[in-house]
Amino acid sequence: MAKKLRMGMIGGGMGSFIGDVHRKAASIDGMIEMVCGAFSSNPETSIASGKALFLAQDRCYASFEEMILKEKELPEDIRMDFVSIVTPNHLHFLPAKMALENGFHVVCDKPMTLTLEEAIELQNIVAKSGKLFALTHNYTGHPMVKQARAMVMNGDLGKIRKVQVQYLQGWLSTSIEKTGQKQASWRVDPKRSGIGGALGDIGTHAENLVEYITGLKIDELAADLGRFGKGRVLDDDGNLLLRMENGAKGTMSISQIALGEENNLAIKVYGEKGSLEWHQENPNQLITHWLNDPLKVFTPRGNNLYPEALNVSRIPAGHPEGYLEAFGTIYKNFANHLISAKKGKTIPKPDYPTVKDGVRGMKFIYAAVLSDKNNGTWTKVNS
Amino acid sequence: MAKKLRMGMIGGGMGSFIGDVHRKAASIDGMIEMVCGAFSSNPETSIASGKALFLAQDRCYASFEEMILKEKELPEDIRMDFVSIVTPNHLHFLPAKMALENGFHVVCDKPMTLTLEEAIELQNIVAKSGKLFALTHNYTGHPMVKQARAMVMNGDLGKIRKVQVQYLQGWLSTSIEKTGQKQASWRVDPKRSGIGGALGDIGTHAENLVEYITGLKIDELAADLGRFGKGRVLDDDGNLLLRMENGAKGTMSISQIALGEENNLAIKVYGEKGSLEWHQENPNQLITHWLNDPLKVFTPRGNNLYPEALNVSRIPAGHPEGYLEAFGTIYKNFANHLISAKKGKTIPKPDYPTVKDGVRGMKFIYAAVLSDKNNGTWTKVNS
Amino acid sequence: MAKKLRMGMIGGGMGSFIGDVHRKAASIDGMIEMVCGAFSSNPETSIASGKALFLAQDRCYASFEEMILKEKELPEDIRMDFVSIVTPNHLHFLPAKMALENGFHVVCDKPMTLTLEEAIELQNIVAKSGKLFALTHNYTGHPMVKQARAMVMNGDLGKIRKVQVQYLQGWLSTSIEKTGQKQASWRVDPKRSGIGGALGDIGTHAENLVEYITGLKIDELAADLGRFGKGRVLDDDGNLLLRMENGAKGTMSISQIALGEENNLAIKVYGEKGSLEWHQENPNQLITHWLNDPLKVFTPRGNNLYPEALNVSRIPAGHPEGYLEAFGTIYKNFANHLISAKKGKTIPKPDYPTVKDGVRGMKFIYAAVLSDKNNGTWTKVNS
Amino acid sequence: MAKKLRMGMIGGGMGSFIGDVHRKAASIDGMIEMVCGAFSSNPETSIASGKALFLAQDRCYASFEEMILKEKELPEDIRMDFVSIVTPNHLHFLPAKMALENGFHVVCDKPMTLTLEEAIELQNIVAKSGKLFALTHNYTGHPMVKQARAMVMNGDLGKIRKVQVQYLQGWLSTSIEKTGQKQASWRVDPKRSGIGGALGDIGTHAENLVEYITGLKIDELAADLGRFGKGRVLDDDGNLLLRMENGAKGTMSISQIALGEENNLAIKVYGEKGSLEWHQENPNQLITHWLNDPLKVFTPRGNNLYPEALNVSRIPAGHPEGYLEAFGTIYKNFANHLISAKKGKTIPKPDYPTVKDGVRGMKFIYAAVLSDKNNGTWTKVNS
Repeated sequence: MAKKLRMGMIGGGMGSFIGDVHRKAASIDGMIEMVCGAFSSNPETSIASGKALFLAQDRCYASFEEMILKEKELPEDIRMDFVSIVTPNHLHFLPAKMALENGFHVVCDKPMTLTLEEAIELQNIVAKSGKLFALTHNYTGHPMVKQARAMVMNGDLGKIRKVQVQYLQGWLSTSIEKTGQKQASWRVDPKRSGIGGALGDIGTHAENLVEYITGLKIDELAADLGRFGKGRVLDDDGNLLLRMENGAKGTMSISQIALGEENNLAIKVYGEKGSLEWHQENPNQLITHWLNDPLKVFTPRGNNLYPEALNVSRIPAGHPEGYLEAFGTIYKNFANHLISAKKGKTIPKPDYPTVKDGVRGMKFIYAAVLSDKNNGTWTKVNS
Repeated sequence: MAKKLRMGMIGGGMGSFIGDVHRKAASIDGMIEMVCGAFSSNPETSIASGKALFLAQDRCYASFEEMILKEKELPEDIRMDFVSIVTPNHLHFLPAKMALENGFHVVCDKPMTLTLEEAIELQNIVAKSGKLFALTHNYTGHPMVKQARAMVMNGDLGKIRKVQVQYLQGWLSTSIEKTGQKQASWRVDPKRSGIGGALGDIGTHAENLVEYITGLKIDELAADLGRFGKGRVLDDDGNLLLRMENGAKGTMSISQIALGEENNLAIKVYGEKGSLEWHQENPNQLITHWLNDPLKVFTPRGNNLYPEALNVSRIPAGHPEGYLEAFGTIYKNFANHLISAKKGKTIPKPDYPTVKDGVRGMKFIYAAVLSDKNNGTWTKVNS
Repeated sequence: MAKKLRMGMIGGGMGSFIGDVHRKAASIDGMIEMVCGAFSSNPETSIASGKALFLAQDRCYASFEEMILKEKELPEDIRMDFVSIVTPNHLHFLPAKMALENGFHVVCDKPMTLTLEEAIELQNIVAKSGKLFALTHNYTGHPMVKQARAMVMNGDLGKIRKVQVQYLQGWLSTSIEKTGQKQASWRVDPKRSGIGGALGDIGTHAENLVEYITGLKIDELAADLGRFGKGRVLDDDGNLLLRMENGAKGTMSISQIALGEENNLAIKVYGEKGSLEWHQENPNQLITHWLNDPLKVFTPRGNNLYPEALNVSRIPAGHPEGYLEAFGTIYKNFANHLISAKKGKTIPKPDYPTVKDGVRGMKFIYAAVLSDKNNGTWTKVNS
Repeated sequence: MAKKLRMGMIGGGMGSFIGDVHRKAASIDGMIEMVCGAFSSNPETSIASGKALFLAQDRCYASFEEMILKEKELPEDIRMDFVSIVTPNHLHFLPAKMALENGFHVVCDKPMTLTLEEAIELQNIVAKSGKLFALTHNYTGHPMVKQARAMVMNGDLGKIRKVQVQYLQGWLSTSIEKTGQKQASWRVDPKRSGIGGALGDIGTHAENLVEYITGLKIDELAADLGRFGKGRVLDDDGNLLLRMENGAKGTMSISQIALGEENNLAIKVYGEKGSLEWHQENPNQLITHWLNDPLKVFTPRGNNLYPEALNVSRIPAGHPEGYLEAFGTIYKNFANHLISAKKGKTIPKPDYPTVKDGVRGMKFIYAAVLSDKNNGTWTKVNS
């Protein structure tokens, strides 16, 4: 009898935000079961978290190292298939490396690593391991993002000329990191976040989204970063100019001090024949414009969609899916790929972000920080 | 070690829409595990469905009767805790009755039964059984619906004067029931749907929502039903006037032939001091008006919310939750109540729709059909 | 050399709301010049108002009777061409009658008269006079309302099945008439307003709009009127069921106690092939749905419009026109008709509301009041 | 008896877009009368245009020079008070200079001149003349823009940290200048437009709006301009980074090749205590966010407005005003200032854009073009 895929989680213990998101996202399609976890660097917290999550006691581990080694010893049909890494940025590389080198596939939160060097090394490790690696750029999982990409890929918009992407939040408007707020404190700390603040936390999502939808790489960028919160050393705001590899131009605006903004990721793409617009906070609409037609709004399971969009909806038109569902689509596509891989089948182009996207995200952070240091000089993202 | 609650499903096999919704909703919070099912009146379909859902073979049953009887024989810590009934309307009563009488709690889709008589009988059965019964009026699970209700209950809007509720769909605009479309064919068939068409399928949601948010019963109504699809004997459209028990007045518009509408459930409530507006297709906004203040829009996990609203969000502000999450909240609240009940604790007022709401829904359908027969005469809902 | 048309105004002195609206609307297209006025029943106020409006002193009249008689004596190329009547309802009939019988064309605010009897008499007077008569149902002047009507008339929506119209305001939520607020005090007074309160003030707009866009008459209605403001004898709220002459059904909701609503006139029309939706507060969008196409939004001067819509925009796409411009279109179309009439040309079907619409509005009010008295009995509008 | 102010128009003959806008805007409040014009450099067109506009034949002039000289000879109570210049950019300076030097006040379209040198010279001429000069940055006339500025000036938003402004159009997506389209052909021609294309036509509006609302000057900018239309030598697209004088940072995106955009001017301003957002295409809403309050939407004549906003609405809440009304407010404020000036009264700070704004706009264009030439180097706007 077929069995669900088995997931072991690293990080995401009590009080974590993203751990719970990953668990819900992984379970939503009924294909994945969490069977074990090392939820905290504090062994007691880890074990208490596992208990609260209904795990068997012997599979609540005190550390990720222990988990990887012990699970490896379990029978193949019991041990975890993959790890899901949901720790802060500085704790991505080591568990990912160890998991891969011990035969486990990996799902990892973004940004992929603490440094660009780690990212490149990890890319090599993945290649050598032959294991799958998914990076949770979750926003690419929305049906209307799939539709947007499919429209560009099919040439409906013609040659792309202009892009506008923003990712605006306001939760760091005040210095809440000084109040001990857990989410804030590691994000403003270069030791745990890396050289990018908002850049890493949300800028990489913006970068990934614009490249995913347009199918174009950002060739170079000019960045003006802000550090508005008192005493912050990392950027909490960024304004960027973009030049895409095909000659398109654009802007990126990211912020965590945009007071009042909740999670305002939005993108506009203008081509020679059409244009499109998508807003994460209202994700079930894709607004499009056309040379000789009125504005059209596409909706999940609505009329005239590409299969890429139709396939990822779980419920009928008009029944809104949200953040967790899109996140779940990353897991679902990863799971389907893994099932095929287990059966020895190959999927030509799995539709989820991979280690390549992770390297790209780190290069983006590095280019933006470098440009900002050079007072906004145009800087190649691939350099 | 604590264990998840165990659910057995009745109905919802391959090709079903709502079965999958219930499964996702039940699992989203990690408190409930589906352990068995009788997914179809066709035994082979039932068993194949169970397999595809990763169930153990011996818990894929050929019929709901078999399931209830066999599960009853299993050890208490293995057998299902409750059944989830996701069949068409005519197949709600019997499984619910049998489950309750054999010691199982019940979650049931709406409308609760085929006839009002069944509904009243079921209410008595529930009372006698001492078991829990949840009816999945899922839209009451949205954070902003909770906020709306809390605002009314706390008197923020003052005395309610006017309500406007609509539930508009367009999927029955053409006679798709004649093409063999499964969802359509039973909904237009009085043997499987009962005396209400759109009234039962979506009108009961509208009725439940207006009564839930305002805390007021519909006292009487005047109905003008339409049967626009060729050959349809059940209503596929309805226009109603409402009088609430406190003297408020209003309208209800429901339709499944409102071409282009996807799932447009919306409500406005006007009081002497404030008013509010909520739209299911954009569920993460609650629009409010006030005598001496500008329009305010409340959002999940945003500022100035009541605990009733704050408590039901799973993710931070700006990360949209949708249909499945709200549906899941019905299951979560039911699960928490069940856990308390198992421990012998009492929850004073569990926050999920119960058998009472189910009886009320049936009375609503009957009153509307009667009023329509009498050319729109005002008809009491409680009669 | 061609000259502007000359307008004399009756009512609309200092402190008036609608008089100023008419003046701006009449002048916006540069075709009409106000040359004289009797702005108030108080002669001093009238003359002071005229002065403030830059009128010549000898054409500021003490009463409408004086104005009509004196203007009649002026040379043809100097005297006014038409009167614009902007007084409260009870002061529409007499000035209109006198103007028509003395050879002047008439523009009149709505509802047309105080009573249905007056309305019918006025219709006869207009017919006998051979003069033009325009009623300012201003909302029919919006480009997107023109587009909506053209789409229905051209069969794009197929047979109409369902309509939903609302006109919601909140400015009478509290008893401001008791504070001496001028706009409120006459509207709640049957001697000045007639038998309808909100019905006459805004309900007639809703009735006119639904009949204008669909080209269908309301055959019968069932009304439940509210009088929520303390001591009010006229309706300040109304909920109605509608049956259109072709079998379509619908609802109408009107209110002046819908707290927080500003001027929320909105309409939805559902046909067998398409549907449309228009909102007065966001008048430059026409939202449409289609059987096999995504949602389309039409905008003034945008793509794929009918000439009827294109012709009434004054400025390019994306430059919002509003209330005054739509109001001005009534005047412009009236002015063009008048110019043709002066030249002896006939316009087959002038596009502005006429005395017929005025009679229809009064019949609507009477039917609604009668139905309400009979506890919501279906009542013919033509009876 | 008081008389309307008398306007003479330069440019804006048949087929012009903006001439008609100025005429409607000037007349909307009944304070200004157009008495003469030189509508075209072609004398016949000029005179035919004047006739069609109901002007007396002897005040339809063959050239602006003739108009200025002949009007000067007319009696003071007959001759025009001011000229309104609505020609393409290269024909602003000369008529403005001549009008001012002959004793006439001036209203002028933007950008103010063809070159920065002209702008600075014009500033001196205005100063020397003692006459009034208004520049029609019409978007500052909207009630919600006034409210936005008042909120910033009153400190409601705290210190401004971030701005985001865009002005997006799509009408030059294709090379319509090659089809002889009149509006397009001069805008892409440096001889008539100056060194800025989209920069001058719409960028100056964006620049003016951000400085008007925030009360802050743009200190320096980095620009990346696009010339996407085949053969275009002027920019038709621009992406800019902004640094405001107080340390705030931001982006500006302008385009006339943003396919499908109609007239999408929009601005967001983020402060330490609040933020705001305004969209020209939906101008009757001001969206605001606050640290500890829910989102609030302000509307014209709605609750809690500053007098600066209340004063500029002409009609009640919910009755949308649009482009022409805002434009008219520039004229109205100019007219009121002129009336006071005639009476010898001084208005401390007239609320309409002046020659200073015109110089500023030209400096903005020059800085952006220079930065772009230097591959996006940060460039001072005041240099």
